[in-house]
Amino acid sequence: MKFTKMNGTGNDFVVIEDLENQINNTGELAKKLCDRRFGIGGDGILLVRKSSKADIAMEIINSDGSYASMCGNGIRCFAKYAYENGLVKKEDMTIDTGDGVKIAILEIKGSKVVSITINMGFPSFEPSVIPALSKEYIINKNIKANDKEYLINTILMGVPHSVIFGKLEGFHVTEGKAIEKYDLYPQGTNVNFCEVVDENNIRVKTWERGAGATLACGTGCCASAVISNYLGYTNKMVNVEIPGGRLTVEITNEGILMTGPAEVNFIGEVKI
Amino acid sequence: MKFTKMNGTGNDFVVIEDLENQINNTGELAKKLCDRRFGIGGDGILLVRKSSKADIAMEIINSDGSYASMCGNGIRCFAKYAYENGLVKKEDMTIDTGDGVKIAILEIKGSKVVSITINMGFPSFEPSVIPALSKEYIINKNIKANDKEYLINTILMGVPHSVIFGKLEGFHVTEGKAIEKYDLYPQGTNVNFCEVVDENNIRVKTWERGAGATLACGTGCCASAVISNYLGYTNKMVNVEIPGGRLTVEITNEGILMTGPAEVNFIGEVKI
Repeated sequence: MKFTKMNGTGNDFVVIEDLENQINNTGELAKKLCDRRFGIGGDGILLVRKSSKADIAMEIINSDGSYASMCGNGIRCFAKYAYENGLVKKEDMTIDTGDGVKIAILEIKGSKVVSITINMGFPSFEPSVIPALSKEYIINKNIKANDKEYLINTILMGVPHSVIFGKLEGFHVTEGKAIEKYDLYPQGTNVNFCEVVDENNIRVKTWERGAGATLACGTGCCASAVISNYLGYTNKMVNVEIPGGRLTVEITNEGILMTGPAEVNFIGEVKI
Repeated sequence: MKFTKMNGTGNDFVVIEDLENQINNTGELAKKLCDRRFGIGGDGILLVRKSSKADIAMEIINSDGSYASMCGNGIRCFAKYAYENGLVKKEDMTIDTGDGVKIAILEIKGSKVVSITINMGFPSFEPSVIPALSKEYIINKNIKANDKEYLINTILMGVPHSVIFGKLEGFHVTEGKAIEKYDLYPQGTNVNFCEVVDENNIRVKTWERGAGATLACGTGCCASAVISNYLGYTNKMVNVEIPGGRLTVEITNEGILMTGPAEVNFIGEVKI
């Protein structure tokens, strides 16, 4: 089986073409291929499939074999793959995902895709939607965890995201573990520690619900940009520095636009 | 650049043919290729080179770019690669390493190498050779670390190895961190926690000096087998269960023979 190993700001995937829907055991396959020592290694696999609703369809399976509806870093890799392999020769392509049809806008240099913009949809501050056990918006709410006090802000940005502001050096990302399961959040929350550098730049490190510390969480970057702007700290467009690289997030009337890179690590062939 | 990704009991390597010695920047190359998210991923790279002293030469560069003279798991991968790719069509081949010429004995089924035996040389109990600050052999020596007491046994098996016996569940492998730097050992020591199951079977988990917990440490398995036998717990030949799989170690008059598997994860091509 041929594959392409890719990453988007360090969030890494094994991309496999399955245009005829011949792969069924996707969970087992993902577990096997994503093992970093006995397999290929990756945070998940991206299956490339045909779609009746969009230019092409993406199916993501996490490294633990579970299904993921959508991933901001994964879809950038996917769009680059689809373009550079001639499957969709458009600079703005529609991609069918488990979270609906997404639009990807590609920046091309020569024949290569150098950056990809994804419309990540709209955030919601509504506690019942997040979901969070609160009657009012969770903005600068004082909570106690890890024997510390935090001012927390929570929205739904695809998934529940909380943002805590301060100097990044002042937080260890594992502090997110206790906050993830805080009483307010019946389904848990992702936790972003966010430092405002200036009105155009923020720095973020994320504790992902169920996954722990990661190099890059696309929706976490979007949530951090949205709340930074809501609180008047930043403009509608910001650069977001994360451990795995840099993304740009823009708040528009059409949704939250996230722009970033995707790279091919290598191509390969594996016996399964 | 073409490569083969392989593993020996979970210790994983990127194997690259460089028969004409064209690769010079091996440290930088290893760091780049071994990165698990932005590169290929591996504990190190194995360069395949010609030798004037043996059938073939292996050069190992660790993932941090440092040079390694020899690796028991790596050399099994290397021997399988050399045989299956037609570079050395012998069932007992000589391999030139930074630690001298080693002999590999291959078990072949069909055209595939299913297990490889490596002569790992002789252990030394001599403290000045280990090196360890002791006038007598370090056997069942009582030391205090981590607010606990341990009975420690230390030999040189290529590198300094200490072995502590007990039920594996009773130890957390990170306890090795404090023992690694114990005063007795001017250059530190690897630390093996070893459970004797019966006279033919032991279980080992290893804290590697400088590297931490690993899935498989070949020299640690040998050291554990040597000391288990020295103390009368086990026979001269034992199976060693480790987190990454299983090895067999045999104490002979010609040296310590270690037998285990090696596997091809996948083949690939990377731009460098």
